[in-house]
Amino acid sequence: MKPLLQVALDNNTLSDALKSANQLGDIVDVIEAGTILCLQEGMEAVRCLRALHPEKIILADTKCADAGGTVAKNCKVAGANWMTVICSATIPTMKAALKEIDDLQVELYGDWTYEHAKHWKDAGLSQVVYHQSRDALLAGETWGKKDLEKVQKLIEMGFKVSVTGGLELDTLKLFKGMNIYCFIAGRSLRDAQDPKLEGKKWQEEISKIWG
Amino acid sequence: MKPLLQVALDNNTLSDALKSANQLGDIVDVIEAGTILCLQEGMEAVRCLRALHPEKIILADTKCADAGGTVAKNCKVAGANWMTVICSATIPTMKAALKEIDDLQVELYGDWTYEHAKHWKDAGLSQVVYHQSRDALLAGETWGKKDLEKVQKLIEMGFKVSVTGGLELDTLKLFKGMNIYCFIAGRSLRDAQDPKLEGKKWQEEISKIWG
Repeated sequence: MKPLLQVALDNNTLSDALKSANQLGDIVDVIEAGTILCLQEGMEAVRCLRALHPEKIILADTKCADAGGTVAKNCKVAGANWMTVICSATIPTMKAALKEIDDLQVELYGDWTYEHAKHWKDAGLSQVVYHQSRDALLAGETWGKKDLEKVQKLIEMGFKVSVTGGLELDTLKLFKGMNIYCFIAGRSLRDAQDPKLEGKKWQEEISKIWG
Repeated sequence: MKPLLQVALDNNTLSDALKSANQLGDIVDVIEAGTILCLQEGMEAVRCLRALHPEKIILADTKCADAGGTVAKNCKVAGANWMTVICSATIPTMKAALKEIDDLQVELYGDWTYEHAKHWKDAGLSQVVYHQSRDALLAGETWGKKDLEKVQKLIEMGFKVSVTGGLELDTLKLFKGMNIYCFIAGRSLRDAQDPKLEGKKWQEEISKIWG
């Protein structure tokens, strides 16, 4: 299956996020209200994205660590289809969240293990996000063979695996032959000279590699 | 030193949070804009708490996992003194956040280790929050000897340790003799029949045990 494309709206203000959504919302498959945006503007950001893009999958990147039921319900009421939970959340938190919203993504940060991943699977979770941390990237780390092997292993465990962190148009081909569920990009799309054109190029590149 | 008392405003709306803050803000030492509140109302919640309680320590419970610098700066600009980071955040994320705000608390969820804790210490972090997960509590777990031992070990490592999760007035004495930095309570204070009176009782109990 062709991977989806998701834009991460990690904008600092609602107006700036809506500008990006206006440029990219029709092109991408998933519109993400980023953590920065959610913390700045609250669920009003999700409500606005839902109002402007009624047909799209909207993800609230809450990186929820606790009170999963309440946070998921709030996201759902605001109009989100999916939300994220952090990998260090407990299984009860993940299960409570999963009851309240269409789907969850587990965000992989820090020292998660395949044993943890098995517990998530057993708890009914189907999506994980393999991350290159923004701060780790700033500190000079990048995508490599060990990342691709971990992604492949998660796919083989049966997860729908999204990948994110420092992706560029030229990086997509690194994942050729892999059953990636979704590519998530933020500034590479939002800060392009022509975001709409850049989004189209990404979709074309994805179609070319996975078509 | 006498432990501080922190109220967690995990209210679902700004108005409800302000009601709780009005009842408890003068009594407690630290006012927390809870994760649920931050995600619902954004940094407007922090701005309102700062406006109404200019002299108090205000904590934004962002449980930040990434983009530490941006999130911390946003919290600081809104008026927060402290914010939280999740234990599975990378060290670069924690360091980036620490540069932008007065202080950070590391929220302990999932399978953190003392080796991780040592890395946080080496990175300049001084505060950790030992948590009983809300969802774990709902699933029947509670405070026990193993929790107290972990808290004590973190204190002996040199951390200022806050404790939270299902605390009641009667639970405080469990920590007698321990150098707890801060007790964090949410619904036990907010949902008391007389929150202000309840807050005073907690401060009296803390003074009685640690005075």
